[in-house]
Amino acid sequence: MIPRLYIDASLEAGVAAPLSAAQTHYLKNVLRRSVGDELRLFNGRDGEFGAEIAELKKRGGIAAVKEQTRKQDAEADLALCFAPVKRGALEHIIQKATEIGATQFIPVITERTVAPKLNLERLQAIATEAAEQCGRLSNPTICAPVKLSALIANWPPGRGLMFCDEAGDDETAEWGGQEGRAAPVLEALKSIDRNADSWAVLTGPEGGFTLAERSLLRDAEIVTPVTLGPRILRADTAALAALVLVQAAWGDWRRR
Amino acid sequence: MIPRLYIDASLEAGVAAPLSAAQTHYLKNVLRRSVGDELRLFNGRDGEFGAEIAELKKRGGIAAVKEQTRKQDAEADLALCFAPVKRGALEHIIQKATEIGATQFIPVITERTVAPKLNLERLQAIATEAAEQCGRLSNPTICAPVKLSALIANWPPGRGLMFCDEAGDDETAEWGGQEGRAAPVLEALKSIDRNADSWAVLTGPEGGFTLAERSLLRDAEIVTPVTLGPRILRADTAALAALVLVQAAWGDWRRR
Repeated sequence: MIPRLYIDASLEAGVAAPLSAAQTHYLKNVLRRSVGDELRLFNGRDGEFGAEIAELKKRGGIAAVKEQTRKQDAEADLALCFAPVKRGALEHIIQKATEIGATQFIPVITERTVAPKLNLERLQAIATEAAEQCGRLSNPTICAPVKLSALIANWPPGRGLMFCDEAGDDETAEWGGQEGRAAPVLEALKSIDRNADSWAVLTGPEGGFTLAERSLLRDAEIVTPVTLGPRILRADTAALAALVLVQAAWGDWRRR
Repeated sequence: MIPRLYIDASLEAGVAAPLSAAQTHYLKNVLRRSVGDELRLFNGRDGEFGAEIAELKKRGGIAAVKEQTRKQDAEADLALCFAPVKRGALEHIIQKATEIGATQFIPVITERTVAPKLNLERLQAIATEAAEQCGRLSNPTICAPVKLSALIANWPPGRGLMFCDEAGDDETAEWGGQEGRAAPVLEALKSIDRNADSWAVLTGPEGGFTLAERSLLRDAEIVTPVTLGPRILRADTAALAALVLVQAAWGDWRRR
C-alpha cells in the first residue's frame, strides 16, 4: 500500500513538497515509513503525483515529487447540507459522504437542532483522511454552520437542492393531499431534466423539520422534495442514502 | 414517544403478550415506563398492535394487547450477503441496513475475510432494535456464516444477486476489456426486467475478492456485477449504498 496524502502546495515533477508535522508523524510512527519510501500526493488542482520521502523530521518533512500518476478530473459540485447530529453519527456522515463524493459540507442550524459545539478542524481532518484513502483527487470543504433561513436566502443560483422530507414527522399529513409534491427519490431525480453540475442534498435533525421550515423549503423554487422510503431513517442514514442516489442517477457513478 | 417492541408471540386484540426480562428492564429502567403506559407491538406476522403495560417484573412482564394499529404488509425479500468486517463497521452495517429494509443478513466467508468471531445474538439484538425504532413490521434474520462457494452452490432459484465489483482491486484489469460485464449500478438495475420480489446484494471484505472468487461470481447466471463509482468505498459504505439503490430502483422506496 502506497500512502496517499493531500497537501496544499503546488505539485509538479521535480519540486520538493512540504509535509506537515502530522503527516510526518503518521508516515513515521503509524505506517513505519522512512526516507526513500514511495508516496502519492494530490492537492485538488494538479492531479496526483508519485513522490519519494526525502526528509522526515519531527516538525515536518519533504517529499521529492516525481511523475504525475493521474490527471485532475472535473468533479461535479455536490454539497451536503445537514443538521448537525451527535458526534459519532456526524463523523460517520463526513467520512462516508467523502467516499461517496460530496465536495462540500454545510452544517445547517434548524429550529430543532440540538446545536453541539462543532469542531470544524476535526471534521476537516476526517474528510481529508477519507479523501486520501478513497482515492479522490480533491479535498472536501467544511463550511461554517449557517441558519436554514440564511442558507435558503443566499442560495447560489443554478444549484439544485434535494430536500429529504422524512416520513415519521408528525406534520407529514399537512402535505398528504398535495399530490406530487414529495415524490419517491428516483422518480423525482428522473423527472428533473438536469445534468447535475451543481447540486445539494439537505437532511434534517433527529426531530425533523418544523412545519414553518418545511413550508419555507417547499416554497423555494430550487427545492425538490423527495421521500426515502416508508421507514424512519436516522439522520446519518438519510444523508448517505440521498448522496448515493444523486451520484448513481446524475453523478460519477454513471461512468464505466 | 410510544415504545415499539418486537415480540415473538401471536398478537390479537384482547390477549396478554409476554415481555422478556430485557424488555421489561428497557421499559422500566431506560425509558422509565410503568404499568398502564402505552406500547406498540409487532411480531412480523400479525401487523402492529397498540398495547398497555399490565405487569413489569424483574423476570419479565405482560402487555395487554388492544386494537391493531397497522396491518402486516408484504415485504420484498432483500438479503445482504457480506464478508464480515471489524466489529464497529459490522454493527453499523446491521443497524443501517435494517433501516434501509434488508430482511436477511448472510455473513459470507471469503478467501480474504479476516474471520472475526461473530456474536450472532448480539447482531440479532442490533437488528431487532433498529427494526423497532425505524417502524418496520418485521425483524430481519441473521444467518450463520457460510463460505462463498457454498453460498453460490446452494443459491435459491429465482433470487437475483447483485455483486458489488469494487474498483481498487489489483485484478480489476482482468475484466477491463470485457465490455458490459460490470455496469454502473443504476444502468444494471434498469437493464434487468425484474420486479425484485427476491433479491440479494453481495459485498466483499476489505481486501476485495480474489480472482478465483470473482470468476466464480461472474460465471454464475444469477449474478449481476455492478460498479459503485470511481472511488474506493469501505465495505460498510458499499453494502449500504447497494441496498439503497436496490430499494430505490425496485423496492418499497418507489411507493408514494
